[in-house]
Amino acid sequence: MSTNQPVDTLLTTHEALFSERAAGIKQSAVRDVFELSLDPSLVSLAGGNPYLQVLPLDKIGDIAQRIITEQGPIALQYGSGLGTPELREQILEVMAAEGITNVSVDDVVVTNGSQSAQDMACKVFCNPGDTVLCEDPTYVGALNTFEAYQVKAAPVLTDEHGLVPEALRTKIDELRAAGERIKFLYTIPNFNNPSGITLAAERRPEIVEICREAGVLILEDNPYGMLRYEGEAAPTLRSLDEQNVIYMGSFSKIFSPGLRIGWAAVPTHLFRRFYLAGEAVALCPPTLNQMIISAYLTEHDWRGQIKTYNDLYSSRRDAMLQALATHLPEGITHTHPEGGFFIWLTLPAGIDTYELLQKGVDAGVIFIPGAAFSSSESAHHKLRLAFCAVDEATITEGVRRLSALLEAEISKLAN
Amino acid sequence: MSTNQPVDTLLTTHEALFSERAAGIKQSAVRDVFELSLDPSLVSLAGGNPYLQVLPLDKIGDIAQRIITEQGPIALQYGSGLGTPELREQILEVMAAEGITNVSVDDVVVTNGSQSAQDMACKVFCNPGDTVLCEDPTYVGALNTFEAYQVKAAPVLTDEHGLVPEALRTKIDELRAAGERIKFLYTIPNFNNPSGITLAAERRPEIVEICREAGVLILEDNPYGMLRYEGEAAPTLRSLDEQNVIYMGSFSKIFSPGLRIGWAAVPTHLFRRFYLAGEAVALCPPTLNQMIISAYLTEHDWRGQIKTYNDLYSSRRDAMLQALATHLPEGITHTHPEGGFFIWLTLPAGIDTYELLQKGVDAGVIFIPGAAFSSSESAHHKLRLAFCAVDEATITEGVRRLSALLEAEISKLAN
Repeated sequence: MSTNQPVDTLLTTHEALFSERAAGIKQSAVRDVFELSLDPSLVSLAGGNPYLQVLPLDKIGDIAQRIITEQGPIALQYGSGLGTPELREQILEVMAAEGITNVSVDDVVVTNGSQSAQDMACKVFCNPGDTVLCEDPTYVGALNTFEAYQVKAAPVLTDEHGLVPEALRTKIDELRAAGERIKFLYTIPNFNNPSGITLAAERRPEIVEICREAGVLILEDNPYGMLRYEGEAAPTLRSLDEQNVIYMGSFSKIFSPGLRIGWAAVPTHLFRRFYLAGEAVALCPPTLNQMIISAYLTEHDWRGQIKTYNDLYSSRRDAMLQALATHLPEGITHTHPEGGFFIWLTLPAGIDTYELLQKGVDAGVIFIPGAAFSSSESAHHKLRLAFCAVDEATITEGVRRLSALLEAEISKLAN
Repeated sequence: MSTNQPVDTLLTTHEALFSERAAGIKQSAVRDVFELSLDPSLVSLAGGNPYLQVLPLDKIGDIAQRIITEQGPIALQYGSGLGTPELREQILEVMAAEGITNVSVDDVVVTNGSQSAQDMACKVFCNPGDTVLCEDPTYVGALNTFEAYQVKAAPVLTDEHGLVPEALRTKIDELRAAGERIKFLYTIPNFNNPSGITLAAERRPEIVEICREAGVLILEDNPYGMLRYEGEAAPTLRSLDEQNVIYMGSFSKIFSPGLRIGWAAVPTHLFRRFYLAGEAVALCPPTLNQMIISAYLTEHDWRGQIKTYNDLYSSRRDAMLQALATHLPEGITHTHPEGGFFIWLTLPAGIDTYELLQKGVDAGVIFIPGAAFSSSESAHHKLRLAFCAVDEATITEGVRRLSALLEAEISKLAN
């Protein structure tokens, strides 16, 4: 130590150095249970992990080897802050498979997962005290990003068909009347995380219209769109409005989350400022990872791979719905997702799912407490279950353990 | 289009949505010349790229293949926001090779390159209008991050031995007297980017002492520390003070920048808030990339590889110094770095190196204009040359072209 100054004085000094926003940066509740989920004695219905065991790992291994051996000085070197030209072109094909054909390659920027695209959007558009609209519940990572930028997340009423247009219109009017500055609507229209709910096709043009008329941008987060197990795909918001929608895509759910590669398709007139915000954070996305994805998209039947995922996840969803129907006690409702990763449970109002989690650990099953996904009090008695990462027998066992626990809690409430 | 609203009205609406900080987010000048540097007819003395051709690419390719084939479901999956336990342990060994032995594994967080650690530091410590101290010149990426957070960068006088302690003390006093809120000193003590200058060993305890007494944190950025071609290594600032120094390390210069993996070693009492700021940006660093680095560190003589780099870069530095001695016209001075990547040239005051760059392109040589590295006017007649990425004959040719250009410019000044 280079000084005799006592440590506690230093701590007080450092406390005064924190930014105002630092107080709002919280541990994600999903992360709280990350370590727990590694315990093999627990059934984890918590994490939104894809089931990577069905990927062609030998083929991907060969691809990585070839890229490094033959093109190592490129793959291991700095790259463009925009992403590699090849991957940006291929992203157009992936979006086309979602029905999005109104994006130019010049409007695509590759990002460090779509979490980082949310960060860029906040950086470029939000001052402290600004407001963003979102579904209630919504993605915990987005809520954490909003808090980090000292942005107020204003939940908009949703029902089983997603955002309610009339409620969106009213909310914008109310907030504006109260002097709030609304910057964008953050929405996951397909198989929302955590609710599993999909915005009905007939509501989509209206949502787009409301936001455009009100001068509110739309951030459309669509990591699960191609993971549909029944029903018809609805048009993406971006396909309905190329000038007022920033679209965020990801390879995390259709290929690999560990490569941390996503993208944003940005209206032309907003593009430059958006991408510079990302460059200031991380310079460029990892080159090797982009080249692996490019080769995978070229050399593997990636659409067929998504079909493989969908067959598998569809069975797992059915197993979870069946187990919930069989085991859940009376008084609990849940969503019936047509795709994606998650089912959302609503318990009797007296049960706090944060407290329930610890009892779940004792009972051998974990989930994500609902409060993580909401800035309001409304989700304290709700919870998220994920069905993609574990096999059907394990899902059934997990739901059985959870149901027994809930039965005990409900009977306590009654006494 | 879902509405008849004219496009120009929408553009005006969107212009009003930008955050205040968005105006301060600029294209990095290093990035401006990135595309240029791909033109094979130009000699690029611009980019700070390591020379990856001497890496054991076959071995790294085999490592990547084995990791994906044998551990794909882990390597391609989400990981901990802290980084993998194995890599965090190994980072202690890498820091020990720099003489840093006072860090616990619990105080290490893996980041998306050290650029992202700078972003985290600003997020956690800086409110808009706060001040950070830095060398003048300093790393362009850090200046861009400061601007993105609306933080004022206050340059501290340096000489050929780095930061001048008395100037640092005076600057802190002056800024405080003017009511400025100083959060940290950002410094690259070893082979500064862009100047190549190293902070003298005898000044280091004093710099550490001044900052601690003044309640100013130190952010020590040390990507080049092990790339020393002559002279004795000086102690890192972190090794002198474990409580007031956040140390930022990187695998970009000692292994591969394209993997985008760096780290921060953070004082224990600051650690949690620091790492949560990163998690909110990108969830976790890419798992595969961390596992490749872990295997490389275990299975390859990475210290020997640094020796290989140092032999190569030392010759290239010597070639550049020799070429400068031979070809540069009178009236130009430059630094003599003991390591790292860069030499810093000071031209006669009338020559603007931003304007010179275009003439350089015409003359077949590119560099980075000095203004990129300074928030003051003082660097407009300076420029950065990089000597690591190209062979000795190319360096010599590049310096010859630059010198001819400078000769013409200087004779214009005289007329």
